[in-house]
Amino acid sequence: MSNSLVQVFNAQSVAVVGASSNSEKTGHTVLKNIVDGGFEGDIYPINPKADTILDLKCYQSLKDIPGAVDLVVIIVPAALVPQVMEEAGAKGAKGAVIISGGFRETGNEELEAEVVKITKQYQIRTIGPNCQGFNYTPNKLCASWPLIKGEGPVAIISQSGTVGATLEMWAESESIGISGFVSLGNKSDVSEIDLIEFFAADPNTKVVSLYIEGVKDGTAFKETVKKAGDTPIVILKPGRTKKGRKAAESHTKSIAGSDQIFDAVCKQLGIIRANDITELYDYSKSLGFLKKPRGRSMLVITSSGGSGIIATDVAEANGINVVDLNEELKKELVDVLPDHCVVANPLDLTGDATAERYKTTVEIAAKDDSIDFFLVIFGDPIPRAFDIVQELKQQTRKEIVVCYLGGGETEKEEVQKMHQHGIPAFPTPERAVKAVKALLNTKG
Amino acid sequence: MSNSLVQVFNAQSVAVVGASSNSEKTGHTVLKNIVDGGFEGDIYPINPKADTILDLKCYQSLKDIPGAVDLVVIIVPAALVPQVMEEAGAKGAKGAVIISGGFRETGNEELEAEVVKITKQYQIRTIGPNCQGFNYTPNKLCASWPLIKGEGPVAIISQSGTVGATLEMWAESESIGISGFVSLGNKSDVSEIDLIEFFAADPNTKVVSLYIEGVKDGTAFKETVKKAGDTPIVILKPGRTKKGRKAAESHTKSIAGSDQIFDAVCKQLGIIRANDITELYDYSKSLGFLKKPRGRSMLVITSSGGSGIIATDVAEANGINVVDLNEELKKELVDVLPDHCVVANPLDLTGDATAERYKTTVEIAAKDDSIDFFLVIFGDPIPRAFDIVQELKQQTRKEIVVCYLGGGETEKEEVQKMHQHGIPAFPTPERAVKAVKALLNTKG
Repeated sequence: MSNSLVQVFNAQSVAVVGASSNSEKTGHTVLKNIVDGGFEGDIYPINPKADTILDLKCYQSLKDIPGAVDLVVIIVPAALVPQVMEEAGAKGAKGAVIISGGFRETGNEELEAEVVKITKQYQIRTIGPNCQGFNYTPNKLCASWPLIKGEGPVAIISQSGTVGATLEMWAESESIGISGFVSLGNKSDVSEIDLIEFFAADPNTKVVSLYIEGVKDGTAFKETVKKAGDTPIVILKPGRTKKGRKAAESHTKSIAGSDQIFDAVCKQLGIIRANDITELYDYSKSLGFLKKPRGRSMLVITSSGGSGIIATDVAEANGINVVDLNEELKKELVDVLPDHCVVANPLDLTGDATAERYKTTVEIAAKDDSIDFFLVIFGDPIPRAFDIVQELKQQTRKEIVVCYLGGGETEKEEVQKMHQHGIPAFPTPERAVKAVKALLNTKG
Repeated sequence: MSNSLVQVFNAQSVAVVGASSNSEKTGHTVLKNIVDGGFEGDIYPINPKADTILDLKCYQSLKDIPGAVDLVVIIVPAALVPQVMEEAGAKGAKGAVIISGGFRETGNEELEAEVVKITKQYQIRTIGPNCQGFNYTPNKLCASWPLIKGEGPVAIISQSGTVGATLEMWAESESIGISGFVSLGNKSDVSEIDLIEFFAADPNTKVVSLYIEGVKDGTAFKETVKKAGDTPIVILKPGRTKKGRKAAESHTKSIAGSDQIFDAVCKQLGIIRANDITELYDYSKSLGFLKKPRGRSMLVITSSGGSGIIATDVAEANGINVVDLNEELKKELVDVLPDHCVVANPLDLTGDATAERYKTTVEIAAKDDSIDFFLVIFGDPIPRAFDIVQELKQQTRKEIVVCYLGGGETEKEEVQKMHQHGIPAFPTPERAVKAVKALLNTKG
């Protein structure tokens, strides 16, 4: 099944049915995002009332397009969708994205069934209806919104367009990037199961991150996750409370199912379960960039004593070992660090720590074999923070997680550089430590 | 005791002993921040080797200053501090801020005792040593770093300069502002107890937010909190685990104490306990802007179905009631909203929600008496989001909390406007709901 999705995500020609010249319409936004995203294949706007949109020649209908059409993006009133799907089938389209709403979610089950029938008849892989499209950055194909261009390790699959878009925007602003984003909508054909299969096999994807409100087919879901091998999967699924479950069921008209059972399945299959949107993002970041550390012993290097204490507390509460420094390492550090530094774990370089002091420390610490991974905390705007962690990375094969407190321009730029080089950085020690915990809980 | 702090925070003349013309030195940064912060009183840099710094006339020592000096900020080597304090006493200074380190925290207990003796002899209220100074925005007096100028309802008291500065920077970037920031340092004289007393009585402060690693005097602490009356107090205190406690004790050379006892004291006194830096910030925001709602019934108005479900789940898990809509309200809403909206709680206006649809909804919902407070979720960049919540605010006396997902420029600007008008906005539904929970747990 997933092979067919490979052709959809790597489409070489796209038609946008319902393309609009009105910049407030979705039919405009999506066409513009495909164009501005840099898609290198053929783009065909379909609108019987326009000659050109965004300088592209418009066609009356799919059948008027001279060449082949791999993917059809549909943004027309629900009642017109079956006819467009018929034309897409006749045209030999491999995939369709139905952004239009007005199907099962509003009680129009028959109309959706009609679309599903056409989908099957022509073997068109169909995303939606009632969705926010998809974005696959390796093919520069953003048939969705917002326009996100940065390539990265995270594939986002979301039953909520807004939650998915928020994750995309965070990833973009922090220079993490995404491999893909798919808005599930009504899952009339393509579901989370097909997408986990596709992204687990996708060489551009390192972690699959899902926001889902229910699973379509429990058995198939379990089989697919098992086959996903070492690709980590993170899931945020609400419906832990009775009212939350009721709200989920009314949103997607599907069965949210028992939360206990879902939780047990996650544990059994090594799925990392996020408790909130922030965790979903943070875990995706650490799983997208890092390998599972060989053990649970962490060294905290910090310029902020308080942040080191907070990190220690959260680590210990989460089964991460803030190991005592071995005597040799301690001795070496005492010899080179100023007297007011606290040579312990957390290793407190104190508020006047310079880039040089950090560098001296990481050079020595990198050699110590009792440490499995590093948490480096920057407490003040150190403009060379990226250089410091990059140097540590070059000297050790162990994983490095960064916490950069503050939030000013320097921090933002340094964090972006770290992400561009595969080092995850978090705004608080708590978030950094919990992201490592997620890493330790993976199957790998 | 706190009366004496009123004079310190409202000082009309400040001397910076150890002022430097080298922009990399703390003695430069602090002087510059006092100047750039717009302090309207007299500023005296003290540096025997300079004629002027930042265009201000330099003095050889405190005794050479012609006028009175209310506050002395000290950034000189530890060994010189007693002499400076003697001069400050002779000059009649009411307060001192000793930023210099090298006292009790590095084993120099005697030196610190000497300073304390002078402090008591001259009745100088002294903050520090080994601290990051203080900032009191109503007096435009930033004897600290970073320079934060925005006035707001939150007073930050922190045993970690970095944690405190991070909170300040977040508050600044979101246009929340602060009333004050005090870095506790070694607490040789002024402690969290004096500061809770001062800020609870300060008309510019609506919430007192603390990061502390230990309490100096348990009995006095309890008495002070009791006297703080309705001013809410939020505390982040690590040391929940054995290693966290050990690290805290080595950082501040004080006793972190039993976490269970501290927790019980918090519950007894109505102190809101934050579990991490993010919660400390979020709770400060809601407590700084809002009153305690009269009850636990929340209406969620959203354009994002998924976010509404997440909010419902977190609310229910935290004892907040996502009430069923009463029949009259339901009927009124069904009449005016498009068919595809979900008229329930969460009230899902769906992804195509316009500002008009939100406005129609809030106008009707504002009248309903079964609702105690509102959570308004914006899932897409709606440029008039602020107008919508402002309109709701004008039509109801009930509290309003906003969640604005995304993270683009539009969201940022709208959120800033909301904060400037006292409406707290959070980046995820989970954080918004938890911030309301903190509000419901206050004494008020």
